[in-house]
Amino acid sequence: MQEQDVGTDWRNDFKNLTPSEFFRKNKQMLGFTGKIRSLTIVFHELITNSFDAAEEAGILPEIDIELKRVEKEHYILKLKDNGPGIPEDYVMRVYCSMFAGSKFRNIQSRGQQGLGCSGCVLLSQMTTGKPARVISCYKENGDIKGVKMKFQMDVKNNRGILMEREDYPAESTGVCIELQFKEVSYSLAEQGAFEYIRRTMIGNPHAKITFRDPSGHKYIFKRAADIVPILPKEVLPHPKGVSADDLMTMAQNTDSRRYKSMLTSSLSRMSNKRVDEISELTGIDMNKRPKDLTFPEAETIVHCFKKMKFMAPPTDGLIPIGSEQIEKGMKQILKPEFVTTITRKPVTYQGGVSFIIEAGLAYGGDSGRVVKEQRKSEIMRFANRVPLTFDAGSCAITEALKSIDWKRYGLKDLDNTPLTLFVNIISTQVPYLSTGKQSVSPEPEIVHEIRQSTMKLARKLQKHLRAKKAAKEKEKRSKVFEDYMPVIIEEAAKLGETGVPEYQEVLAKVTKRALAELLGEKVEEEEEEEELDAIIMEEVDERGYAVDGNSTLDSFEEDDVDDEFED
Amino acid sequence: MQEQDVGTDWRNDFKNLTPSEFFRKNKQMLGFTGKIRSLTIVFHELITNSFDAAEEAGILPEIDIELKRVEKEHYILKLKDNGPGIPEDYVMRVYCSMFAGSKFRNIQSRGQQGLGCSGCVLLSQMTTGKPARVISCYKENGDIKGVKMKFQMDVKNNRGILMEREDYPAESTGVCIELQFKEVSYSLAEQGAFEYIRRTMIGNPHAKITFRDPSGHKYIFKRAADIVPILPKEVLPHPKGVSADDLMTMAQNTDSRRYKSMLTSSLSRMSNKRVDEISELTGIDMNKRPKDLTFPEAETIVHCFKKMKFMAPPTDGLIPIGSEQIEKGMKQILKPEFVTTITRKPVTYQGGVSFIIEAGLAYGGDSGRVVKEQRKSEIMRFANRVPLTFDAGSCAITEALKSIDWKRYGLKDLDNTPLTLFVNIISTQVPYLSTGKQSVSPEPEIVHEIRQSTMKLARKLQKHLRAKKAAKEKEKRSKVFEDYMPVIIEEAAKLGETGVPEYQEVLAKVTKRALAELLGEKVEEEEEEEELDAIIMEEVDERGYAVDGNSTLDSFEEDDVDDEFED
Repeated sequence: MQEQDVGTDWRNDFKNLTPSEFFRKNKQMLGFTGKIRSLTIVFHELITNSFDAAEEAGILPEIDIELKRVEKEHYILKLKDNGPGIPEDYVMRVYCSMFAGSKFRNIQSRGQQGLGCSGCVLLSQMTTGKPARVISCYKENGDIKGVKMKFQMDVKNNRGILMEREDYPAESTGVCIELQFKEVSYSLAEQGAFEYIRRTMIGNPHAKITFRDPSGHKYIFKRAADIVPILPKEVLPHPKGVSADDLMTMAQNTDSRRYKSMLTSSLSRMSNKRVDEISELTGIDMNKRPKDLTFPEAETIVHCFKKMKFMAPPTDGLIPIGSEQIEKGMKQILKPEFVTTITRKPVTYQGGVSFIIEAGLAYGGDSGRVVKEQRKSEIMRFANRVPLTFDAGSCAITEALKSIDWKRYGLKDLDNTPLTLFVNIISTQVPYLSTGKQSVSPEPEIVHEIRQSTMKLARKLQKHLRAKKAAKEKEKRSKVFEDYMPVIIEEAAKLGETGVPEYQEVLAKVTKRALAELLGEKVEEEEEEEELDAIIMEEVDERGYAVDGNSTLDSFEEDDVDDEFED
Repeated sequence: MQEQDVGTDWRNDFKNLTPSEFFRKNKQMLGFTGKIRSLTIVFHELITNSFDAAEEAGILPEIDIELKRVEKEHYILKLKDNGPGIPEDYVMRVYCSMFAGSKFRNIQSRGQQGLGCSGCVLLSQMTTGKPARVISCYKENGDIKGVKMKFQMDVKNNRGILMEREDYPAESTGVCIELQFKEVSYSLAEQGAFEYIRRTMIGNPHAKITFRDPSGHKYIFKRAADIVPILPKEVLPHPKGVSADDLMTMAQNTDSRRYKSMLTSSLSRMSNKRVDEISELTGIDMNKRPKDLTFPEAETIVHCFKKMKFMAPPTDGLIPIGSEQIEKGMKQILKPEFVTTITRKPVTYQGGVSFIIEAGLAYGGDSGRVVKEQRKSEIMRFANRVPLTFDAGSCAITEALKSIDWKRYGLKDLDNTPLTLFVNIISTQVPYLSTGKQSVSPEPEIVHEIRQSTMKLARKLQKHLRAKKAAKEKEKRSKVFEDYMPVIIEEAAKLGETGVPEYQEVLAKVTKRALAELLGEKVEEEEEEEELDAIIMEEVDERGYAVDGNSTLDSFEEDDVDDEFED
C-alpha cells in the first residue's frame, strides 16, 4: 500500500484553475518578467487596446499617458483615450476576465487574445493590492453616457468585483484607466516604456500620444499623417485556410440549416456553384443539416478544397500601414539621411491565412541605437502595427533578417552600421508563439516574404551608399580642379606664345599635382574608389588638355561611373 | 452615428472562451507548430506525465511506446506506462480539461501546468476527429481496478464526453493511452521524436523506454541505473520567496484561524518565535483572522521577511539526478571518450525559490550531433529532467552558455567540436517562458549558476585535452627514441674504445636525426607543442649523453610538462 500513500491524493490534489488563477501563477507567460519589461508590457497592452478601439470606430487615436512615481518601483499609470468607450456592462468583463473579449473575430486587430488588459489589472492587483479605476464614456441610443468605476479582480472566479460606481458627466467618448504597480521600473533603455512609445509611433503615424514621464517632462508625439486608416473588415476564412476541425466548429455554431448555406455563409470565395462542384466531386449531400456533419465528411470537403482552384483571399481585410506612411513615421522619429520602404502584395501562409509584409530601412541620422556612444543597427519588429520588443530569438522576423548575407549589399559590419530595419506583419491571424505575443512563428511563407522585402530595401541602400561615395569623390575632385584651374589657366596663358610641347608638359605637371593631392587625401579608403581613380587618371591623360574640370566630371559621373556602380 | 455602426458590437462580439477554446485557436502556444515539432511535443507531454506519476508513487518508470503510420502524416500513437493509474472519475478530467490537474502543488515535478495531456487530446481531435482511448488500472481500497474508456473533448465546455466505457481485467497498475494524429511527421532529426527519447534517457537513467517506430523497428532504451529516485517532498514556500499577493491568496484559502497559525503552517522556516518577532517588528496583531488580512499588512509582513534572517529553504524538496547518474546516462547514450559532470548545491532565485543546477560535458565518441557527416557540438537543455527541445533562443541555459569564453578553455571552434553539453535545472517552480514549456526565464541567479557549473566542467575538459596531447607527444617521442636507441648503443659501444669528443659527436648526430624526425612529423601542429620541443632539445643537449629514453621522458612529462600545461 506504500504506493498509494506517496502517490497523488486525487481528491485533495486535483484542481481546476480559472485562466486568471493560471496566469497569476505564471505571470511570466503574459510577458511579466523583469521590472523594466513588465512595465513595458503594461504600456503595450493598454496602448494596443486603445488603438484598436478607436480605429474600429473610425476615430484617429489620441492617447494621453501619465506615469507618476510614488516611490522607488511604485508607479501610478493613467491612460486616457479618445475611443468609443466601453458600455458599463462590459467594463469589468474587459478588465477582469481572462480569455474574454471582442477580438476573437477573423479581423485584423492588434489584440487577439482577450488577455492583455486583464493581465495589467492582475499585475496591478498582485503587486499593490489596489483596485483599478476606470472612467468609461460611450454612446448609447445616441446619447453619451459616462460611468466611473472602482473594482478588483476576483482571481478565483475570473471576474470583477465592483467596489464603487458613480455616474460621470461625459462630454466625449473614451476610456480613462488608472492602475498602480510596484516592482516595476521605468527606463529609457531599448526594452523600456519610452522606447516602446517611440516605436509605436513609427508603426502608427496616424496616432498622437502625449506622455508625461515620472520626472514631469511632457513628450508630445505628433501625428505624421492625418489619414484615418481604412477600417479593416472582418473577412470570412478562405477555403484553402480551413481545417476539418474548423468546419466542425463552424457546423456546431452556425445558424444555417444545410451544409450548402453553411459553406457559402461561413467561407469567402464560396458560391452555390462551387458547393455544387464539391458535392459532385465528393458525393456528399449538401442538403444535410450542419449538426450532422461528421469529421470524415469535413476531411473530405477540406481535401476537395485543396484540389480546387479559388480566387485569392479577399484582401480588404488587411490594411497595411502603407509604405508612404511608414516613410513618414521613420522620417519623423529617426530623421535619417536615407530611408526606403516597401509594402508587399498580400500572400498566404498555411494555405489560406493571408498576410502582408511591410518593411522600412532608415540609414544615418538617429537611425540605429546608441550603445556606449556608438550607433549600432537595430531591428524593429511589428505585428499589426504593434512593436514586438522581447523574445526576438525565435521570431520569424529575426530568423529572416539573420539569413540575409548583408555583405552582398555592401554592409560589411551590419552590427556597427547606423541602421534601423522595420518589419511589420499584417494579418487577421498573426501566429504568435506565446501568450506574451512577442514573437511570430517562423512559417516558411512569412520568412520568405520578409527576406524578399528586406533584400529589396538593402539593394536601394547599397545604391544610395555608392552614389554618396561617388558624390563625395566628385566634390573632392571638383575642389582640386577648382584650386588648380587658376594655375592651369595662368600657365596656359604664359604658354600661349611658346610651343605646344611645353604647354603639354606644364599641364601634365599641374594635373599630376592635382591627382597627387586627390590620392593623398584618401589613403584609408577602399578598393572601389581606387578603381575610380584609375579611370579618372586615364580620362585625363587621354584628353591631354585643359577643359572645364567640372563639366567633364559631371558627364563622366553620369555615364561611366554610374554604370560602374550598377553592376 | 457612423462610429457606432463600425465599432464593436458588444452584445454579439464579446465572448468568453474556455481554456480549451483558447488553445484550439492558438495551438502553437502549446508548442504545436510544424509537423515534426508537434509530434515531439506529444511524446514530451505523455512521457512527462507517465514519469511523474510513476515516481510520485515510488515506481521505477517503464514505458512502452508504439507509433504506427496509417498513411503519410497519419499516425496512431500508443503509450503504456507502469504508474499508479488514474481513478476512473479523474480520467476525463486529466485528459479533457485544460488548466486542470494535480500538479499545482509546491513540489518538484516535470509537468506543472495541467495543459500537457489535454493538449495532446485536443491536437488529436483537431487533426483526426477521432476519440481518445484510455485503459486505466489503479488501486482502490487495496484492490486493482481497471477501466477502458473512449471519449472526446467538449472544447466549448473544457471537459470530456464519454462515448464508451467497460470494465477491464487489471493485473497491474498503469495507464495505456491511444491517440491518432494527422498533419504530424515522425523524424530522426534533432527536433524529432526519436531524439527526444534519446535525450529523455540521459536525464532519466533510472527509466526504461521501449519504442517501436513506424518501420516496426523496436528500440529498447535500458536502465543505466537501478535506483528509484528519492521522492521529492512537497515543500512549503520560503518566507523570502513569497509576495504580498501570495500571502493574500494563502489567507483566502487557509483553514487556520489566526495569522500566526496561518504563517507557521503555510511557510517553511517559520516558528511561533519568528512570528512573535514579526509581530514585534511590525506591530501587527498576529491573532487576527486570516480573512481580515489587508494588502498593506501583507506588504508589511513580506517587507519584514526581507529584513529578517532565515535558514535557507529546505532542500529535500529538490531531488537532482545526481552527477553519477548523469555520467552513467551520458556514457550509455554517447559512449564518449571523456565525460565529466557536476551537481551544484541548492541556491535560490527571486529571493526564495530554490533550485539546483546540474551539468555534464561529454567529448568524443557519439558526443555532439552529426551535421553533413561532421560532428558539431550540441547543447541539451533539461528542466526537472525533461529535455527542452525548442525555443532555445530566449532560454537561460542558452544565454549562460553563450556568455562563456570557450577559447579560454582551449576550444577554439566550439561549433565544430564533438561535444555534448548537458544542463538540468531542478526546481519546484521552473520559471518557464511560455505555455509550451520549452525555455526557462533567464533569472540572473539561474544564469550565474549555469555559468559556474559549466566553466568548472570546461576546465576539466581542458585538462583532459592537454593530457591527451601530451600523451600523444610522449608516445611519438618514445617511438623515435626506441628506433634510435639501438643505433645509439651500437655507436656508443664502438666509441667505448675511442676518445670522448668523437663519442659526443656521434651522439649529437643521432640525436639530431631523432629530433628532425620528431619535428618533421609535426609540421601542422601548434604552438604549445613547439614550445615543448624547444624544452626537449635543451634537455637532451644539456644532458649530452645516452640514458634510458623512456624513463627520461617519463620524469620529464610528470614534472615540467605538467606544470607547463597547468598555467
